Amino acid sequence: MIQIALLGFGVVGSGTAEVLTENRALIEKRFGEAFNIRYILDLREFPDHPLGGRVVHSIDPILADPEIRVVAEMMGGSHPAYEFTKAALEAGKSVVTSNKEVVAHYGAELLATAREHGVSYLFEASVGGGIPIIRPLRDDLAPNEILSVSGILNGTTNYILTKMKKEGTDFSLALKEAQSLGYAETDPTADIEGLDAARKIVILAALAFGVLISPSEISVQGITGITAEQTAAADALGCAVKLIGHTERVGGRVLALVAPHLVPASSPIHHVEGVFNGILVNADMLGKTFFYGAGAGKLPTASAVVSDILNAAAGNVRLPEWTPAAPDRIADPADRVCRRAFLFKGCARCAEATKTYFGYENFLLRDGAFLFISRPMSGREADAAVAACGKELCWALPVLD
Amino acid sequence: MIQIALLGFGVVGSGTAEVLTENRALIEKRFGEAFNIRYILDLREFPDHPLGGRVVHSIDPILADPEIRVVAEMMGGSHPAYEFTKAALEAGKSVVTSNKEVVAHYGAELLATAREHGVSYLFEASVGGGIPIIRPLRDDLAPNEILSVSGILNGTTNYILTKMKKEGTDFSLALKEAQSLGYAETDPTADIEGLDAARKIVILAALAFGVLISPSEISVQGITGITAEQTAAADALGCAVKLIGHTERVGGRVLALVAPHLVPASSPIHHVEGVFNGILVNADMLGKTFFYGAGAGKLPTASAVVSDILNAAAGNVRLPEWTPAAPDRIADPADRVCRRAFLFKGCARCAEATKTYFGYENFLLRDGAFLFISRPMSGREADAAVAACGKELCWALPVLD
Repeated sequence: MIQIALLGFGVVGSGTAEVLTENRALIEKRFGEAFNIRYILDLREFPDHPLGGRVVHSIDPILADPEIRVVAEMMGGSHPAYEFTKAALEAGKSVVTSNKEVVAHYGAELLATAREHGVSYLFEASVGGGIPIIRPLRDDLAPNEILSVSGILNGTTNYILTKMKKEGTDFSLALKEAQSLGYAETDPTADIEGLDAARKIVILAALAFGVLISPSEISVQGITGITAEQTAAADALGCAVKLIGHTERVGGRVLALVAPHLVPASSPIHHVEGVFNGILVNADMLGKTFFYGAGAGKLPTASAVVSDILNAAAGNVRLPEWTPAAPDRIADPADRVCRRAFLFKGCARCAEATKTYFGYENFLLRDGAFLFISRPMSGREADAAVAACGKELCWALPVLD
Repeated sequence: MIQIALLGFGVVGSGTAEVLTENRALIEKRFGEAFNIRYILDLREFPDHPLGGRVVHSIDPILADPEIRVVAEMMGGSHPAYEFTKAALEAGKSVVTSNKEVVAHYGAELLATAREHGVSYLFEASVGGGIPIIRPLRDDLAPNEILSVSGILNGTTNYILTKMKKEGTDFSLALKEAQSLGYAETDPTADIEGLDAARKIVILAALAFGVLISPSEISVQGITGITAEQTAAADALGCAVKLIGHTERVGGRVLALVAPHLVPASSPIHHVEGVFNGILVNADMLGKTFFYGAGAGKLPTASAVVSDILNAAAGNVRLPEWTPAAPDRIADPADRVCRRAFLFKGCARCAEATKTYFGYENFLLRDGAFLFISRPMSGREADAAVAACGKELCWALPVLD
């Protein structure tokens, strides 16, 4: 019998208990041993829950119990989740977590602590909800150099953008509907400003390149500026506007960013609709591989937590080594080379005259403006071309190829 | 230094050597130890290859060498691949393979042999080429009851069907082009008749349900009967014709089959084009998760082989237990309940009169025929409805929802 403790009994915590209870028989059969939730740490009491008797209000009995092998941290927020995680690892217990904030800020240190104490620190549930992405990227793609990782990492914003595309609604209306359906919080800032996706892309960047960048040090742009007109223009180009977390190496440094992109229909990311998440990994041997599924939700996220509990209990996980990013390891987003979509005010003659600056063949005319996708160019080159062409720019967005 | 042996130095075998050589430094860093190819078993000599000196023509020195920890079998065909695998496992060596034939026919026995001798038998590369699907299904989805697995498991047929859809060409023309591009073999039978996909779906069914069915015992239908007219009719219904391997539980038994399906645009499988593979897993806690990528090819497949080599060398893999399927564990395909597309000869009045038999709301008229998607019904019910409605059936295909 493997004894475990849950830290936090909110949505994911209670979901984890539910998965372990509902599928107890098959988990025991597949793993070869049973799991028992001995403690649940929460500030609240749960007198009506079958596991209500396991609730404790202090981490101490969990740290002091030598039989506790795995601690599942699902408290959310950086503190005291970080301190509890650190203490559990130092007490020789493996920790698994759904807490992207802690992983994004303290992952490098906590992985080192885990290695030092011969235990695991696993965080499959911190990115993409239940979608297996962390472990496939770490283990299945281990023979590969990762070239880039790009994805829809936030279901709330993807729901809003899907609604805008399908119904031609404006951002604020789509946000209201997302809120009324419970897909967006009353204060939706972390989602719509891209902060949630920023935490996830720095975790994926660290897995890909071994360098953990603070979410506050990367370029983050949300979707509040996206208009129904932009969505329609993207559609006319055969693209969808998607909020993309993206990471790649640029000139030996690591680039990570969150920004709205135009995604062509040829990309599997284009077809990710509603609250789903989808992550595309480009690797030197494997080429492009795509992972898609429920990016949030009680049971999907809990499934990932339980999968990590099983792995931590089995032991022998090869933990990655992450280095906190020094400033000279972080790439300037202006150096990123990609195709870019532009909409300028002007007529067909203006569009013809502008071709040479941006290297495009085709353009579309829309309401006194022209619209095109450029050749691959850096942000710096793009800025220079905008200035040189002398036309009035309405908007520009990178294209994800 | 971990000593390994490669059995077979064809496309995948030489690709495996290439991955291990090209990415030697990063593999060693991630794994913490170096890998050395000590033997390559092949009937041929490779005097010009840098590893030509490692070639042997008998399995014996490999079995006799106590330092060989992992054997990678990439010979293809059942024999002597099965015998060599069995002997290597019995000699206490882990075996990894890309050989779907051996896994589909002998997987249950070889997994038992591996367990008995405390070693691993891994086969990530046997399904979906380089796409991580075997291990995610076995490990990341371990807390879930699997409800179904459905996918495009053969790139050749998907290339042909994509071409038929996009260009309106007929099957034979699309096949010829696939052959001229090297996507289809001179004798394309195993691909176009669905036999290759059959081997893969029985492996996925065994992972999902623990029961290994022989590929010869499942219902297999290829794409030779698909016409340009059918492809166009599917398109009119917002669907694509795809060759699908599908497995689910039906009445306590395991159903596995390969057949052309109509796939609606709402499914991620719809958007898998060309030689790519895509596999959708539906699980009780996680919901639907989708895995997409290169389903074949030298380096993608080799990437999966090398990933298995790393896992086998690390040890501590929880191998699944498979039971060879007794006849009473195998479901009758006629019991499968799903929506179905039908095209009958007849006019709008006939279509109205037929609604009640198939429970549809909408239909399309095409060249003296009517076309619709039915309510979910079993094959048995569908046959009865076709007989009862008294109209002339042109074709019927299951719909993958």
